Amino acid sequence: MSFKKLDDLCRKLEALEHALAILGADEATHMAVGGGEKRAEAMAALAGMHHRQATAPEIADWLAAAETEELDEMQRAAVRELRRQYVNMTCLPSEFVERQTQARMRSEQLWRDLRAKGDWAGFLPALDGVVALVREEAQMRAEKLGLDPYDALMEQYDPGNRAADIAPVFDDLKAFLKDFVPEALAVQEERLAKRPLKALSGTYPVERQRELGLAMMAAVGFDLTHGSLSVSHHPFCGGVPTDVRITTRYRTTEFLSALMGVLHETGHALYEQNLPQDWAHWPLGRARGMAVHESQSLFVEKQIGRNPAFWQWALPRLEEHLGEAWSMEDILPHVHHVARGLIRVDADEVTYPLHVILRFELERELVSGRLATKDIPEAWDAKMRDYLGLSTIDDPADGPMQDVHWPGAAFGYFPSYTLGAMMAAQQWAALAKAVPDVDAGIAAGRFDAVNGWRREKIWSQGSRWSTPELLERATGEKLNAEYFIGHLKARYGA
Amino acid sequence: MSFKKLDDLCRKLEALEHALAILGADEATHMAVGGGEKRAEAMAALAGMHHRQATAPEIADWLAAAETEELDEMQRAAVRELRRQYVNMTCLPSEFVERQTQARMRSEQLWRDLRAKGDWAGFLPALDGVVALVREEAQMRAEKLGLDPYDALMEQYDPGNRAADIAPVFDDLKAFLKDFVPEALAVQEERLAKRPLKALSGTYPVERQRELGLAMMAAVGFDLTHGSLSVSHHPFCGGVPTDVRITTRYRTTEFLSALMGVLHETGHALYEQNLPQDWAHWPLGRARGMAVHESQSLFVEKQIGRNPAFWQWALPRLEEHLGEAWSMEDILPHVHHVARGLIRVDADEVTYPLHVILRFELERELVSGRLATKDIPEAWDAKMRDYLGLSTIDDPADGPMQDVHWPGAAFGYFPSYTLGAMMAAQQWAALAKAVPDVDAGIAAGRFDAVNGWRREKIWSQGSRWSTPELLERATGEKLNAEYFIGHLKARYGA
Repeated sequence: MSFKKLDDLCRKLEALEHALAILGADEATHMAVGGGEKRAEAMAALAGMHHRQATAPEIADWLAAAETEELDEMQRAAVRELRRQYVNMTCLPSEFVERQTQARMRSEQLWRDLRAKGDWAGFLPALDGVVALVREEAQMRAEKLGLDPYDALMEQYDPGNRAADIAPVFDDLKAFLKDFVPEALAVQEERLAKRPLKALSGTYPVERQRELGLAMMAAVGFDLTHGSLSVSHHPFCGGVPTDVRITTRYRTTEFLSALMGVLHETGHALYEQNLPQDWAHWPLGRARGMAVHESQSLFVEKQIGRNPAFWQWALPRLEEHLGEAWSMEDILPHVHHVARGLIRVDADEVTYPLHVILRFELERELVSGRLATKDIPEAWDAKMRDYLGLSTIDDPADGPMQDVHWPGAAFGYFPSYTLGAMMAAQQWAALAKAVPDVDAGIAAGRFDAVNGWRREKIWSQGSRWSTPELLERATGEKLNAEYFIGHLKARYGA
Repeated sequence: MSFKKLDDLCRKLEALEHALAILGADEATHMAVGGGEKRAEAMAALAGMHHRQATAPEIADWLAAAETEELDEMQRAAVRELRRQYVNMTCLPSEFVERQTQARMRSEQLWRDLRAKGDWAGFLPALDGVVALVREEAQMRAEKLGLDPYDALMEQYDPGNRAADIAPVFDDLKAFLKDFVPEALAVQEERLAKRPLKALSGTYPVERQRELGLAMMAAVGFDLTHGSLSVSHHPFCGGVPTDVRITTRYRTTEFLSALMGVLHETGHALYEQNLPQDWAHWPLGRARGMAVHESQSLFVEKQIGRNPAFWQWALPRLEEHLGEAWSMEDILPHVHHVARGLIRVDADEVTYPLHVILRFELERELVSGRLATKDIPEAWDAKMRDYLGLSTIDDPADGPMQDVHWPGAAFGYFPSYTLGAMMAAQQWAALAKAVPDVDAGIAAGRFDAVNGWRREKIWSQGSRWSTPELLERATGEKLNAEYFIGHLKARYGA
């Protein structure tokens, strides 16, 4: 039976994915500094084995045969999703993949060296090569998948997302934010004039911050028997669903960045820990994609973790672990602080979407060829002035050189961040309709109703639906910017 | 060129071995408790991939072809050692390996459950099944390798070791120890009557003990850029040569068990860290075997770590990290304490060999069929009374049920422990001849001469020679019990 053959294949692939996930997390947390070269060799070899096994030609036959077998609904969904992954993995000739991998690695390396110097001119030829290959890639993917080129790139990260659907939603959001950012800043200025930002009272030992983070993780639903918290330079959520590794980094001079980071990664971890276990070895049992994953992390960080109701419960925890006896009037201005800035990863939830929309617009132009790589800095600067009133023309390190995505050939990824923020707000609105006293529960430290809804609507669904289908089934409607806009107005508006 | 094919094969196998080594170390140190089932599945699948790739039939052709190619001396040695490994891995039919694996896993599981209850009768049928299969295994290995059955089993752990060579050396040692143990105990009693054992003065925080352990590791030569120290229930040395993971466990009521454990594992780690890197992916570049590995750990733990010269350097470290201002007269009775006991892993270096010789003698009888499994407890008890004057007949948990080796079908492994102790003493004697002021260097915290000698004679040799050849090349003579006996007399005698 072909389904059985595919099931065996998925178990083998899962073993290699398990190894790669744990080796990757280990590298960032526990590996000796001198172990990097051999680790890279080992992971490259394992990734090669995985790719060869996952793209073997006989899989096409097994898939075709399995599609004619008598299977139940979940098995059919499993085969469907495996075919989707197989097509996405096999639609590029291996000669092209090798060429692109080399160009990408060279460009990433060069980017790391030149970003610090803000040397755009030195970096341009490498990026130009990457963009040329991405255009080629998008064309090939588009032909195989019957999609527009940019959509074919997005398909790798968020199946079913189409620029034609997203662009108008982003346009609505952009139009709103261009007016709303100044409004939110004015509101904040007025409030801070009356009551300045509460000063941090002392130093915060790492071990205490860690205990606070663990207490919050556990309360919010993180299963500490199936995951752990450690330290890495860049926070991440990695590992495997039965052993989710999240990390943060600590500064002893303040506690909010580590704590909000822990909540963000906890959101990713809850998704992983609650995926359908029976299908863990099939693509069907995996998280749907980048936007949905980001919606889960932002749900915990923004919808829960920056919700005043949450702090009713959390303030006593803060006092218990860090000795900070803060009031709501002390904490909220910190967790709701808004600022215009040049750097996407430092942005708050009000300004962040403008960073993403700028990139989304530029990368669509880049992929289509309407924008030349050399013209990026001016185009970037013009949009940055328009959307946030800031200029980046003199320092490309704070402009188009700030992100690894383009040097790494990851075009079509950026929209996921803001789609995730919008989907989180839309999920919150649907949840609040289904569970009217959701704030009261959170204020009392009870997250079971919230998590029950999310488990049913999102986590347990794995990769059964496309990204837009999953959202619509969970919330009853298509992606709608109004929920996110309403959320920002309520939290930051006049 | 076939050598190139073998080189590529070794790189692939190395990647899987890297993954298995890190996943194994991670499981014991950082894995979430609930992650065990999936980890076991993943490791079994990776081990299966490794076994399939390492035993592929075409390797026989490549080996045969490579043996006719024009290769330099190291390449020829690499091919020779790879053939040895290939023959050892392929000499059992896979049908048999599966049957044995199942029996072994069942028996190990049962052993874990029944050992606590001391239920020998309940465990006997499972062990009997394992022994029957080991006899079959030994016969098949013996035929393929042209060795005696027991030697064919030892060949897996220590290539070149032969019972006919070891038995007389063990007999010498046994004859000596049966008289020497009472002598050493009398000497100790007399000394303790004059000056009782120094009491431990307080509690020893884990973090302080860890810092002391790290300081000693680094001083003795552990490269902290290529390895780390963490905590696990059973101390071990794992990982890969570029990233050696050693562990210990701490009790806050005393500091010597964790510290001596760190020194022991550091001995293993130094061997791994100093293997020939160019051959890391070939069996040639690996540690020679269990006895040589144990000789390296015991060299650091016993020859260095319990040497009075070492404590001249170490006592100020003890005071610095733990606040214990001890004299030589305080510390030496602790690190040289001797006691008769039933449990091998708790034994000191004087009594330990008798535990091993007892097992070596019994397992030779078991493998040959001269001893029946059901008769083990009586045979064990008789030897234990004869060698150490203790009885185990009423509690098999403290007798033949104490070790995992036999339930796990690892026959031929036990001799390695005592061969390691003897080889360490023989290496120390050869080193002391080559470096006459070795004690003065150690007393001053200088380990470069010691490590330079060991690097040249042992570590850099990888698996180039059989175990007896390596020892003879390093020390100028065959295994000779007199060095170990001399060491014990000097340290513990009247």
